[in-house]
Amino acid sequence: MANTLLPVLTFLLLSGLGFAVREASWQQGACQIRNINAQDPSRSIQAEGGVTEFWDYQNQQFQCAGVSIRRHRIQPKGLLLPLYHNAPVLVYAVKGKGIFGIVNSGCAETFESSQQFGRSEEGRSQSFNDKHQKIEQLRQGEIAAVPAGAAHWAYNDGDQELVLVVFHDNGNYANQLDQNPRSFFLAGNPESGQSEENPESGQSEEQYRGSSRRGQQDQFGNNVFRGFEVQTLSEAFQIDEEAARKLQGQQDERGHIVTVERGLRVISPPEEYGRREGEEERYSGGRNGLEETSICSAKIRENLDKPSRADVYNPRAGRYTTVNSLTLPILSFLKLSAARGVLYKNGIMAPHWYLNAHSVIYVTRGESRMQIVNHRGQAVFDGSVREGQVIVVPQNFAAVKQAGEQGCEWVAFNTNGNAMINTLSGRTSAITGLPADVIANAYQISREEAVRLKSSRQETMIFGGRSRSERGRAASA
Amino acid sequence: MANTLLPVLTFLLLSGLGFAVREASWQQGACQIRNINAQDPSRSIQAEGGVTEFWDYQNQQFQCAGVSIRRHRIQPKGLLLPLYHNAPVLVYAVKGKGIFGIVNSGCAETFESSQQFGRSEEGRSQSFNDKHQKIEQLRQGEIAAVPAGAAHWAYNDGDQELVLVVFHDNGNYANQLDQNPRSFFLAGNPESGQSEENPESGQSEEQYRGSSRRGQQDQFGNNVFRGFEVQTLSEAFQIDEEAARKLQGQQDERGHIVTVERGLRVISPPEEYGRREGEEERYSGGRNGLEETSICSAKIRENLDKPSRADVYNPRAGRYTTVNSLTLPILSFLKLSAARGVLYKNGIMAPHWYLNAHSVIYVTRGESRMQIVNHRGQAVFDGSVREGQVIVVPQNFAAVKQAGEQGCEWVAFNTNGNAMINTLSGRTSAITGLPADVIANAYQISREEAVRLKSSRQETMIFGGRSRSERGRAASA
Amino acid sequence: MANTLLPVLTFLLLSGLGFAVREASWQQGACQIRNINAQDPSRSIQAEGGVTEFWDYQNQQFQCAGVSIRRHRIQPKGLLLPLYHNAPVLVYAVKGKGIFGIVNSGCAETFESSQQFGRSEEGRSQSFNDKHQKIEQLRQGEIAAVPAGAAHWAYNDGDQELVLVVFHDNGNYANQLDQNPRSFFLAGNPESGQSEENPESGQSEEQYRGSSRRGQQDQFGNNVFRGFEVQTLSEAFQIDEEAARKLQGQQDERGHIVTVERGLRVISPPEEYGRREGEEERYSGGRNGLEETSICSAKIRENLDKPSRADVYNPRAGRYTTVNSLTLPILSFLKLSAARGVLYKNGIMAPHWYLNAHSVIYVTRGESRMQIVNHRGQAVFDGSVREGQVIVVPQNFAAVKQAGEQGCEWVAFNTNGNAMINTLSGRTSAITGLPADVIANAYQISREEAVRLKSSRQETMIFGGRSRSERGRAASA
Repeated sequence: MANTLLPVLTFLLLSGLGFAVREASWQQGACQIRNINAQDPSRSIQAEGGVTEFWDYQNQQFQCAGVSIRRHRIQPKGLLLPLYHNAPVLVYAVKGKGIFGIVNSGCAETFESSQQFGRSEEGRSQSFNDKHQKIEQLRQGEIAAVPAGAAHWAYNDGDQELVLVVFHDNGNYANQLDQNPRSFFLAGNPESGQSEENPESGQSEEQYRGSSRRGQQDQFGNNVFRGFEVQTLSEAFQIDEEAARKLQGQQDERGHIVTVERGLRVISPPEEYGRREGEEERYSGGRNGLEETSICSAKIRENLDKPSRADVYNPRAGRYTTVNSLTLPILSFLKLSAARGVLYKNGIMAPHWYLNAHSVIYVTRGESRMQIVNHRGQAVFDGSVREGQVIVVPQNFAAVKQAGEQGCEWVAFNTNGNAMINTLSGRTSAITGLPADVIANAYQISREEAVRLKSSRQETMIFGGRSRSERGRAASA
Repeated sequence: MANTLLPVLTFLLLSGLGFAVREASWQQGACQIRNINAQDPSRSIQAEGGVTEFWDYQNQQFQCAGVSIRRHRIQPKGLLLPLYHNAPVLVYAVKGKGIFGIVNSGCAETFESSQQFGRSEEGRSQSFNDKHQKIEQLRQGEIAAVPAGAAHWAYNDGDQELVLVVFHDNGNYANQLDQNPRSFFLAGNPESGQSEENPESGQSEEQYRGSSRRGQQDQFGNNVFRGFEVQTLSEAFQIDEEAARKLQGQQDERGHIVTVERGLRVISPPEEYGRREGEEERYSGGRNGLEETSICSAKIRENLDKPSRADVYNPRAGRYTTVNSLTLPILSFLKLSAARGVLYKNGIMAPHWYLNAHSVIYVTRGESRMQIVNHRGQAVFDGSVREGQVIVVPQNFAAVKQAGEQGCEWVAFNTNGNAMINTLSGRTSAITGLPADVIANAYQISREEAVRLKSSRQETMIFGGRSRSERGRAASA
Repeated sequence: MANTLLPVLTFLLLSGLGFAVREASWQQGACQIRNINAQDPSRSIQAEGGVTEFWDYQNQQFQCAGVSIRRHRIQPKGLLLPLYHNAPVLVYAVKGKGIFGIVNSGCAETFESSQQFGRSEEGRSQSFNDKHQKIEQLRQGEIAAVPAGAAHWAYNDGDQELVLVVFHDNGNYANQLDQNPRSFFLAGNPESGQSEENPESGQSEEQYRGSSRRGQQDQFGNNVFRGFEVQTLSEAFQIDEEAARKLQGQQDERGHIVTVERGLRVISPPEEYGRREGEEERYSGGRNGLEETSICSAKIRENLDKPSRADVYNPRAGRYTTVNSLTLPILSFLKLSAARGVLYKNGIMAPHWYLNAHSVIYVTRGESRMQIVNHRGQAVFDGSVREGQVIVVPQNFAAVKQAGEQGCEWVAFNTNGNAMINTLSGRTSAITGLPADVIANAYQISREEAVRLKSSRQETMIFGGRSRSERGRAASA
């Protein structure tokens, strides 16, 4: 088509359109995924009270799935300033413990102080009346769901780092603008944070200077109060202009996570609130979507890590736990679900595909060998995914995982309120559902072999496995 | 546009691609809205019985929101010919009174004449039997909802101009083709109308000759009968070819709004039908979406202007009234809602954002100063919007309004069946829901100031305000 | 990445940019359909037990509607290997009879052999125990619905060719990746089949070498087991590597439809299972979407051809039968429906438009003259559609059909769980619902003519018609 110089000129003439064209290549009809990589965060923004790391949302696998991922590392007494996003998000606590609050205009302030706070850091009982909306404890192994546009904040009230992995479903029906992640802060001066490139992410300086950096800024956002006039804010809040200027945080150098020197004092029920035995059963009982429960009182948190909640458990291999619209009704509104996988040493997650969702995997511990196969029968990924990395398994693509010597644990964010999985091997697999004679003729094996193929793996989804060296020994024995 | 060779070559090389590239820039992933303008209609089409004015749907703010707007000015005895659109529409009567009819194939003809019409213009009781589907009175301050693909018509039976503002949600799930507005007429020769550019809309002649004009024609459409062969129509209607030719309106020079010289005679209940006290309560009672009510008998009209229907009322500042899927169940099917705002002199609508909808504002009276802020904390709009102008507030963008000396009234069309709003200041705002200590630390103010920030504006959403000069006096006092 | 300028630009133009731009032209906002053609399949892939023919899904009409079509011609004893797609599909049996099975991981194996198979081809009662998931008989005139990602297979157990037309709704909400059709096989070596261009489809060799061939391969797919390592499969199935290699079908030369020499033996209820009188009533009774019925036991099949099921029947003209979410509840989940039309000699299907769906028509017998009209009043199609051809009627476009001398029969696949049709003429048409005076003024005819126009065709949707020559004679008589 183009051997002469003219197309080049054409290209140059189109320079203004470059971005448009680039975007277009991720539109419907053009996700020819030939290669997927396990990804580390590509850059980070350092603030006073912690750091946020971003995976490059312009990477093909994220663009095709319409998702983005970031990770907050909040130091003790660190406060992630209130913000909202253009997409529903799932927040998984990888480490530590904190307080998590969602505020919706119009919801009642149901947490009210009597005379003094129970959570004063210094033990002083300063008289200080307040009331505010419901807040939640969020600890390691728990996941929280936040609707698009709902403002929220987080605070590390523990004594170790609080690590939150945040999944944005930008392609969700609830986001009507475009698939770029957008965060709107309600306070501070987030752009005052120190932005750094991650040299290990494999991106060149060129890429950094180009779309990636621009994208970074675009997704991160700033304090929306800065866009309003001081006079307007003064009038809207009925405060003086000096106070209005404070809302804009012009001089604030602390970035998007600030340190609360004396510790944050909020109204909160006794520590073990919401963790009594049987609570989950009570919540998930009769609820049926958002009809029965307003957005104000909806349960937004679930523990994904407690072994007793496992959906699949194999003492030789590991466990698998899901949270979906049936167990956490707000997810039927968000159209998202999640799963937690734990594989012991050499454990295998059966070859499988998701019927109705992309699955975005974040490895929380250890390492797995993974293969991901497209419809052409080609492995678009065949490699290792280790702690702290992210990989996307596109809808319908077949995937298999085998944990390494240290085992592997992960959380999977799925783009459907009730993600449905089909396994290829094991007791409840699709292969088992096929008539033996179909199998015999499909694979050109005898009926006896077909029956054996259907029945040899009697485990479900999570299998015990041997290491490569063990297999070698077994084969040569 | 192109007199030198190179651009021509470029154009030729891009021939197939040119339009595609332009369109692509509005696709998902590319709505970098840096600037929004209050818009006047960019062109108009004059017909015998009135004129229709179009806002340029190719303008970025409309493209990004997937919406378009037009305004019919129908003269007394003017009949807007039956037509349907590729998207659900909301019709707001800014002025005047008329008759509005939706016809769905398969719905019963429930309005039947006994012996004579009650609505004969001349008072003569000509014997003339007819039956037809339900029709509605539509008056100033009322809104009507029309599903995608449903044919409808309008007639001005009053003695002043009937002004209808029509909102098309082209990005709606109900439109499966593309986001271009398309209108299909069932009669007449709409293209015979006189098309005129609006010199005040700020578009250059270049733009007029280019995409804008093409877009104009594309969206407006023509009589679909013209595309059928006369023989086919003759056979399909079992009429002679002379009559079939009439369906095509080939010689019709009247345009898309025709004048009914003797006045239109339709079957209609007595004037005050549907306006008895308590009617609204009865309709909105037990209904729950379309399950309980067929498309044929669904209520499609609501009064947005009656002060007694206000959701928020502040005697010092104004009122705010919404219609959504809970108050007009057909909107849960259309996934649209609307609101009517009335601000008195200097009144303020609190800084706010919509969680789940774009909001398209048409000012019906007066003028407001508005600021619209994106996630970067930048004002994409900071200016005045006056009577007859349209502006789009994209989903999640923060906005504030303050009425001018004459006050301001508007109607907002929202792209969600139950658009949810969050305010930043006032009694039920998101800020009020935050713990005081979060506020204190976020804005670097004392807890006392934080408590004051939460409580100083005790009004809800609609605030009394002072003019700039008053504020100046107060400050210097 | 690259150091010289020209190769980089050329590369961008040819690979990334070129393809992206092409795709972009079918995005939202750019479906300027000016011309539609009746389509024959553009290529075919021949396998041992049959052939599959593909319509070019990159053709504008299919791209704009987000759909694709293929046709399997399965010889007696031919087995279409198990596969799944990235979109929900509807399968219509044009000819013959077969067995159709859907397997979902996790669904119970509810078909269990007692001691011997009842379906042994040779009459031998070999002792062979098996159990597998539910299977269905599928015969001429029946339609089956398959959710996105659900594996399925088909077998011709009759003595004539089994012809299945398969409709893919790639634009469906259930497909989250892109609109390209993707098929994932669970067995065999589909790419070993012989691919052939259809010289009659009107595509040039150039087109064949270009996108079309690539698209072909892309949509067809291959055995997903090939992308996994043999060792991994061996471990996942707990079989030896020799057997694991069989899963990959590396040496398999039979293609995607294989011949089962001795005939397939599956467990199946007696022949007339599911065909007792009253069965349909029983199934469609109280069911209400997927809430009451799991995906495992959902009814997936319906007879569209039985005259007694007709929704519209006109002894002079033909009949019209629909299946939608109300009659086959799984369609409310798939958001698809279908219709079967039968027109006798010269019969007419009334001019009509679909409010909420594209309609994709496959002619199963005979031939029709069709006209399809866009919103500009232009005929984008005016011609003949004959047996074996496909044509798309885009949403809202007006269409009319008149059967030729041999009559015409077709199946229409509609992209909505409850496709709603509006007719322009006939007893229940939109025109009939208009007040006579609106008609009189719209078409500039007298009220008497208007009443006649509303009432002259008293049939509904399917009209008796005369041939062109008869009409000529009538006119000259």
